[in-house]
Amino acid sequence: LVESWSFLDTVESNFRPLVVIELAKGTKEETIEWLTKRIVDKKANGGAQLLIKPMVTEDGVENIYLVGASHLRLLLGAEAVGLVKECSDNSMRTFTYSSRKTFKHFADDNHNFLTMAECQYIIKHELENLRAKNEKMIPGYPQAKLYPGKSIVRRLLTSGILVQIFPLHDREELKKLSHSWYGRVKVGYQPLDDIRCYFGETIALYFGFLEYFTFALIPMAVIGIPYYVFAWEDYDKYVMFATFNLLWSTVILEVWKRICAILTYRWGTLLMKRQFEEPRPGFHGVLGINPVTGREEPVYSSIKRQLRIYLVSLPFVCLCLYFSLYVMMIYFDLEQWALDYHKENESNFSSLMLYVPSIIYAVVIEIMNRIYRYAAEFLTSWENHRLESSYQNHLILKVLVFNFLNCFASLFYIAFVLFDMKLLRQSLATLLITSQILNQFAESLLPYWLQKRYNRRMKKRMCSKKTDMDLSLAEQVNMEKEMGTYLGTFDDYLELFLQFGYVSLFSCVYPLAAVFAVLNNITEIYSDALKMCRVYKRPFAEPTANIGVWQLAFETMSVISVVTNCILIGMSPQVDALFPDSKMDLVLTVALVEHLLLAIKFIMAFVIPDKPRDIQTKLAKLEFESLEALKQQ
Amino acid sequence: LVESWSFLDTVESNFRPLVVIELAKGTKEETIEWLTKRIVDKKANGGAQLLIKPMVTEDGVENIYLVGASHLRLLLGAEAVGLVKECSDNSMRTFTYSSRKTFKHFADDNHNFLTMAECQYIIKHELENLRAKNEKMIPGYPQAKLYPGKSIVRRLLTSGILVQIFPLHDREELKKLSHSWYGRVKVGYQPLDDIRCYFGETIALYFGFLEYFTFALIPMAVIGIPYYVFAWEDYDKYVMFATFNLLWSTVILEVWKRICAILTYRWGTLLMKRQFEEPRPGFHGVLGINPVTGREEPVYSSIKRQLRIYLVSLPFVCLCLYFSLYVMMIYFDLEQWALDYHKENESNFSSLMLYVPSIIYAVVIEIMNRIYRYAAEFLTSWENHRLESSYQNHLILKVLVFNFLNCFASLFYIAFVLFDMKLLRQSLATLLITSQILNQFAESLLPYWLQKRYNRRMKKRMCSKKTDMDLSLAEQVNMEKEMGTYLGTFDDYLELFLQFGYVSLFSCVYPLAAVFAVLNNITEIYSDALKMCRVYKRPFAEPTANIGVWQLAFETMSVISVVTNCILIGMSPQVDALFPDSKMDLVLTVALVEHLLLAIKFIMAFVIPDKPRDIQTKLAKLEFESLEALKQQ
Repeated sequence: LVESWSFLDTVESNFRPLVVIELAKGTKEETIEWLTKRIVDKKANGGAQLLIKPMVTEDGVENIYLVGASHLRLLLGAEAVGLVKECSDNSMRTFTYSSRKTFKHFADDNHNFLTMAECQYIIKHELENLRAKNEKMIPGYPQAKLYPGKSIVRRLLTSGILVQIFPLHDREELKKLSHSWYGRVKVGYQPLDDIRCYFGETIALYFGFLEYFTFALIPMAVIGIPYYVFAWEDYDKYVMFATFNLLWSTVILEVWKRICAILTYRWGTLLMKRQFEEPRPGFHGVLGINPVTGREEPVYSSIKRQLRIYLVSLPFVCLCLYFSLYVMMIYFDLEQWALDYHKENESNFSSLMLYVPSIIYAVVIEIMNRIYRYAAEFLTSWENHRLESSYQNHLILKVLVFNFLNCFASLFYIAFVLFDMKLLRQSLATLLITSQILNQFAESLLPYWLQKRYNRRMKKRMCSKKTDMDLSLAEQVNMEKEMGTYLGTFDDYLELFLQFGYVSLFSCVYPLAAVFAVLNNITEIYSDALKMCRVYKRPFAEPTANIGVWQLAFETMSVISVVTNCILIGMSPQVDALFPDSKMDLVLTVALVEHLLLAIKFIMAFVIPDKPRDIQTKLAKLEFESLEALKQQ
Repeated sequence: LVESWSFLDTVESNFRPLVVIELAKGTKEETIEWLTKRIVDKKANGGAQLLIKPMVTEDGVENIYLVGASHLRLLLGAEAVGLVKECSDNSMRTFTYSSRKTFKHFADDNHNFLTMAECQYIIKHELENLRAKNEKMIPGYPQAKLYPGKSIVRRLLTSGILVQIFPLHDREELKKLSHSWYGRVKVGYQPLDDIRCYFGETIALYFGFLEYFTFALIPMAVIGIPYYVFAWEDYDKYVMFATFNLLWSTVILEVWKRICAILTYRWGTLLMKRQFEEPRPGFHGVLGINPVTGREEPVYSSIKRQLRIYLVSLPFVCLCLYFSLYVMMIYFDLEQWALDYHKENESNFSSLMLYVPSIIYAVVIEIMNRIYRYAAEFLTSWENHRLESSYQNHLILKVLVFNFLNCFASLFYIAFVLFDMKLLRQSLATLLITSQILNQFAESLLPYWLQKRYNRRMKKRMCSKKTDMDLSLAEQVNMEKEMGTYLGTFDDYLELFLQFGYVSLFSCVYPLAAVFAVLNNITEIYSDALKMCRVYKRPFAEPTANIGVWQLAFETMSVISVVTNCILIGMSPQVDALFPDSKMDLVLTVALVEHLLLAIKFIMAFVIPDKPRDIQTKLAKLEFESLEALKQQ
C-alpha cells in the first residue's frame, strides 16, 4: 500500500470536479494558499493528496474551488473508508487496493468502478480527516484556534471561513435517474439501486422504506374500503379488522428488517465496519485527553450534560407538552362554539363552519411543531453531545414525543374522555387529510416553485435560453450553490411515523385512513423524488445499514395501537351489548384480549428472524473466512 | 508463528497430566496406536502435537490415558482459542504468542501464566479439533465412518470407543479453593476469581449470579418481614411494597448486566471472539457441503426440522401442559376432600392432613418435571439441531414453559379463579419450602452422601487409610473417573428462575417469600460449592460473556409479575373498598396503573446502560486501536 501511495501523482490530465468548496468572500490570500496546499499535499506530509482547482466567477472573485481526485487516489480512499463491494464470485467484501483485481467490474481503466456518490463520499471523508499538525490557528485568523489532530475543515466551517462544501450534480445521470424514477407515470418499483448510486444509502433506504410501507398498507386499505362503503358496524367484523391490523403491523415491521438486510447487504453497508466517530462540529469543551483515542480534544463532563438534560431539557419538554394540551382544550372550546353556532342558525355556511376549528387546529399544530422543532434543536445543541449520533437520538426523542402528543392528544381526548366516536372519526379524517396536504405543499411544491422562479431569473440574467443540459460548469456550480440544503431524512420519516399513527392507533374507528395514507404515499414518492432531484443541492451519500431509531419508534407505535384499539373495540356499543349483565366482564375480557395480543406480538417479533437465511449464511461465511484467515496468520 | 511451531518438541521432561481419556475396555490395539499417533503428531501433519501417556491400572488393563502439553504448546493453543489476557498496562488483549512479552505476569518460565482450567480448555479444544484427513473410518472399527474434516474425538465418543474425557482435579488448589469458598462460616463474598480460575467462566458466572441475586433479594426480604410480623394488611402499604418489588426487580436485572460486564471484562471473555461452531455430537444427516465453510459435513434440511418442531414437539408440549393442568385439578379435589375431612372430624391429625395434598402435589410436580425433562431432551435431540447452542435454546424453552406452568398454574388458579388469598398464601409457602428442601436434598446432599460412601469403599479396597491429599495419581484418576458428571448450569439456573417466580409473581400476598429465598440461597451457595468440589468430576471450563437466555427468562418473569401483582392488589378488599360505587373504575384504574408500571419498566430497561461507562470506554478504545491498526497496514 505504501508503494502505491508513492506512485500517486497529484497532477492528472483529466480533472473531474466532484465536490465544491465555497469560501467566504474576502477570505485572506494566505488562508487560501495554506488550505489548498494542505489539500493537495502528499499523504505522507499530512495532506489529503486531492486535486483542487479555483473557479473564476463572472465577477472575478475567487471564492469557489472544485475538488477532485485521481482514479488511484479514489481507490485508496475507498479502502480507507472501508467500502464494501461485490466480488467476481458474487460475495461482498471490504475493498482493498491490493485485492482490487478480485472485484466485479474492476479494471484499471474503468473509472465507473466507484459510483460518483461513493467518490464524493470518499472526498468528503478525506477532507474532514485533514487534521492540524503543528498549526496553533488557521493562518490569517488568529481567533480560529487549532490543536494537533483537530479537523481543519470543521474548524473552517465553525469559524465561518468555509461557507459550504457540497457535491456536484451529474446532470446527465440525474436526467436518466429522474426519468426512470418519476419522469413517467408507471406502475412499478422505484429504481432503488440507481437512487443508491446517485444519492447514497441513507436516502435510498428512506425511499425503499416509503415504497415498502405503501405496499404494506395496501392490504389494510383494501380491507378497509368495504367497511366504509357498506358502513359495516358489526362487532365481529370490527374485531377481525382490528386484529388483522395489529398483527399485520407487527409482521410488516419485522419483514422490513429482513428487506432492509437484503438491500443493505447488496449495497455493502450491512458489512461495513463502523468508523470511529469524531466529535460533532458544534461540540465544545476544555482541551483534554480523550480516554478512547488518547488524543488531545475538547472534553465535556458527562455529568454536566446529564444535569442539562434532566434539569433543563426535560422540564422544558414537559412544559411544551402542557402548553400543547392547553391549546387542545382551546380547540375543544372552539369546536363546542361552532357546534352551538350551527345549531342556532342552521345553514350551509354554518355546517361548513363545523370543519373550521379542526382545520385551524391542524394548522396550529403544524406551526407549533415547527416552532418546537427549533427549540428542540437549540436545546439539544446546548446539551453539547460529543457525537452526532447521540445528538440525533436526543433530538429525535424530543421531537417525537412532542409531535406524538400534538397530533394525537386531541384524538385520545375525544376517544377516551368524550367517548364521541363520530367526532373522533371526523377529527381523524380532518387531521390526516389537512396535515397531508400541508406537508406535501410545504415540503416539495413550495420549494420547487421558488427554485424554479429563481432558476428562471438566473438564466435571464445570464442572457441565454439554454436548457439545463447545456449549462457550463461555472453556471451549474453557481446555480447549485444557491439551492437549498437537504437536511436529512428526519422530516420524511417523521411524516411517515405520524401517518402510521393515524392509520393504526384508531384503525377500527376509521378504516379509510389506510386508503388516504396509500394515496398520499404514492404522491409522496413523486414529490420527494422531485425534491431530491430538482429542489435541493445534491446531498453527500451517507452509508447506513438500517433506519436506526425509527424502527424502534414504529414498533413502539404499534404496541400503543394494540392498547388503543382494544379499548376502542371494548367501548363500541356492539361489544357492549354482548355483556348486558356485567360491565366488569367486558372490561376484564378486553384486558385479557389486549394482553394476549401484546404477548403474540412480542412472540412474533422474537420468532421471525431479522435477517433472511441466505443473508445469515453469507454473513456467517464471511465471519468464518476471517476466523480462518486469522488462524492461517 | 510458523517458526515457533517447529521449535516445539513433543517430548518434554516434566509431563504434567491435565486431561484424562478413558477408552472402552477391549479397544483394539491398532485403534489406540492410531489415536495416540494422531494426538502426538506434529501440527503440520494434522496432529494435535500434545503429550500422551498410558496409565496402567491395578488390573493391568491399559484403557486410561493422560494427556498433557508442553508450556510452549499451551501458549500457542491459547492463541488458537483466542484467549484474552491482561496486559502489563492493565488493558485486556487477545493473547498472541508473538506479543507474549506485553502480558502481565508473563515469563518464559512462569508456568502459571495460564490457569490450569485454561490449559485444560485448550487441550479439549485441540482434541476436538483433531480432524480426519483421508481416513474413511476409525482403524479397527469399520462401522465408525469418517470423512475429511470430521472431528475424530466426536466420532470416537458417538461410536462408544471413547468413554469419556475429563480434566483432572488439582487436589492442592481444590483444597485451597474449598477452604476459602465454603470451608469456614464467614460473612463475605465468594472468591469468584478463584472459582473462575479453577472451574471456568460459566460456573463462576453462575455463582456470581447466585450471590448477586441473593444480595438483591435482601432489601425485599427486609421490607417483607414487618408485613408478616405486624400482619400489615393496609392497602397503601401493599401497593408500596408491590411497586417497590416490581421496580426493584427491573433494576436488579439491569444492574446484573452491568456487573456481568465488569466480571467478564476482567476475565477476558467479554472480548473473546466467538469461534465458529461445529455441529453438535448427536447431529446426523446425509453428507453434503456446508454453505458457510464449504466443507463436507452432514447436512439436515431445516424444513424437516421445522416440521418436527411444529408438528411433533409443539403438540407434545401442549399435551403435557394439558396433563399438568389435569393433575392440578385432581390436587384441588384432594384439597377439598381434606378440608371436608377436617371439618367432619376436627383433630390435630386432621389439621395436619390439610397440608398433605399440598405436599403430595409438590412432590408430584417435582416428579413430573423430571420425567418431562427426559422427554424434552429426547425430543430436542430428535429435532436434530446442528448447533449445541440452538439445541440448548430449544431445550431450555421447552423445559421453562412446562416448569413454569407446573409450578405456578395451581397458584394462578387459586388466585384468579378461586379468589382465595388465604389458600394462595398457604400453597405458596408450602410449594416454595417443599421444593427448596427437595432440591437441596436431591441436588447436593444425596449425591454427596453416595459419593462419600463410594469413596470409603474405594479406599477400603485399596487397603489404605490415606487422606485425599496423599492419593497417588493412579488412585486419583480411578476415583475421579467414577464420579458423576456435572451436566451444566441448567438446573441451577432453573431453580433460581422458579424461585424468582415464587418471590415476585405473588409478592404482595406473601412478602415472606423473599426471606425464604434468601435463606435458601445462602445454603444453596454452600451446597452448590460442595457439589462442584466434592461430588462431581471437574468440568471443563467454558468461556462465556453472559448468562445467555436466562437473562431473557428472568426479564419475562418480571414482566409477568407486574401483571399478576396489579391484579392481586386490585382484588384485595382494601382496594375494593376504595371504589364503593363502581367496580368498573376499579378495574380501569388497575389496568391504567399496570400499563404505567410496564411502561416505566421498559423505559428503565432502555435508559440504564448495559455496560458501565468505564467498560464502554475500554471497549471503544480497543475498537479504535484495531481500526487504527488496520489503517496502518
